[in-house]
Amino acid sequence: MAGKLYGIGVGPGDPELMTLKALKTMKACDVIAIPGKNPSESVAYRIAEGAYPEINEKEQLLITTPMTKDLKVLNDAYKKGAEAIEKLLDEGKSVGLLTLGDPTIYSTYIYVHRNVIQDGYEAEIINGIPSFCAVSAKFGDSLVDRDEPLHVIPASYQIEDALELPGTKVLMKAASKLSEVKQTLKEQGCQAMMIENCGMPDEKIYRSTDEIPEKGSYYSLTVIKNRK
Amino acid sequence: MAGKLYGIGVGPGDPELMTLKALKTMKACDVIAIPGKNPSESVAYRIAEGAYPEINEKEQLLITTPMTKDLKVLNDAYKKGAEAIEKLLDEGKSVGLLTLGDPTIYSTYIYVHRNVIQDGYEAEIINGIPSFCAVSAKFGDSLVDRDEPLHVIPASYQIEDALELPGTKVLMKAASKLSEVKQTLKEQGCQAMMIENCGMPDEKIYRSTDEIPEKGSYYSLTVIKNRK
Repeated sequence: MAGKLYGIGVGPGDPELMTLKALKTMKACDVIAIPGKNPSESVAYRIAEGAYPEINEKEQLLITTPMTKDLKVLNDAYKKGAEAIEKLLDEGKSVGLLTLGDPTIYSTYIYVHRNVIQDGYEAEIINGIPSFCAVSAKFGDSLVDRDEPLHVIPASYQIEDALELPGTKVLMKAASKLSEVKQTLKEQGCQAMMIENCGMPDEKIYRSTDEIPEKGSYYSLTVIKNRK
Repeated sequence: MAGKLYGIGVGPGDPELMTLKALKTMKACDVIAIPGKNPSESVAYRIAEGAYPEINEKEQLLITTPMTKDLKVLNDAYKKGAEAIEKLLDEGKSVGLLTLGDPTIYSTYIYVHRNVIQDGYEAEIINGIPSFCAVSAKFGDSLVDRDEPLHVIPASYQIEDALELPGTKVLMKAASKLSEVKQTLKEQGCQAMMIENCGMPDEKIYRSTDEIPEKGSYYSLTVIKNRK
């Protein structure tokens, strides 16, 4: 009988934010699939290792995806990753593919998942804490209350359009256009908070729009509450 | 030295979706505070018990909030809850208040948290998996990919306005106006999926707009992907 793929969300950074189910699934899987060229360079692997040090004794499979926005090249890479996993599933092995945060929110895991499902195998998503929840906990208050909507906005979105929305806005990975974001926030009198590398050893917290730097790292997240 | 309050997110229903940190915090706390009149009627307590059966040996504090939309009455109840907790904190006890899902997203925990902080005590948020992530995992696909925004919309919001937004919409607890929501979805040709009581024994899944019932239970959640 063919094995099964598990997409394991390791959460945003703190190994203790992994779920009981994620830990149990990692322990039960025959093979741990890791995004990247090298386990030690994989953020997801380092988080998983923090919760389960014996993970290094497991059979490993590295899944590399090129740093490109070319969808054709990316899709080929996901297909190749899926095929490498399916080879192991055919051997009856269960495979746990680690992914940062939650697999249902902007994860690259989902493309491998869809390929594997399409090829007739079983695949299951194991949730992780999304980064924006962890950031809000770190700031010690809620993201949204009562009748406030929550908008999670990827970097490609126009920041001006996002600020028109009522409720709380979370800007994901806006590092590359942080200078523009900061200027727009100041022009519109919006108070924002930002975290880089939430829950990781090199975490940095910025508690106001003024504190936000002109350049940020890849894992940055900005929270904008209701306008003043 | 005064004790500390922990707002413990128990996740959406499956006890295994609790985080390692939530379990560790429950075990370490002197007192478990439970929303409701009776532990056995508290959904959050039943979830916590599933992950930590010995929880019933802990000292318990019940925090009741009246079923009303009157903010004055609610705020008085949160204040009273906070005072009961502070009495324990003054005795040097640590208190873990259980809350469904994640404490940063529409939780009532946060009102107690703010009172306790305001009164000069320490309080910490322990994240839980939000219901909408668990629902998406259950449907076996992502909520959002690449450049899609995610909008989490409370029941009070106008459904027509929500449907105008690009990307994925999550309607929280729209049970009371499900008939209206269903009709609007049909008129606009939107495909939606709905779950009631996700991860709980009485979970019900509806995979299309047509399947969605005219009435739903309190813990219902509807996901609407991009328009057709």
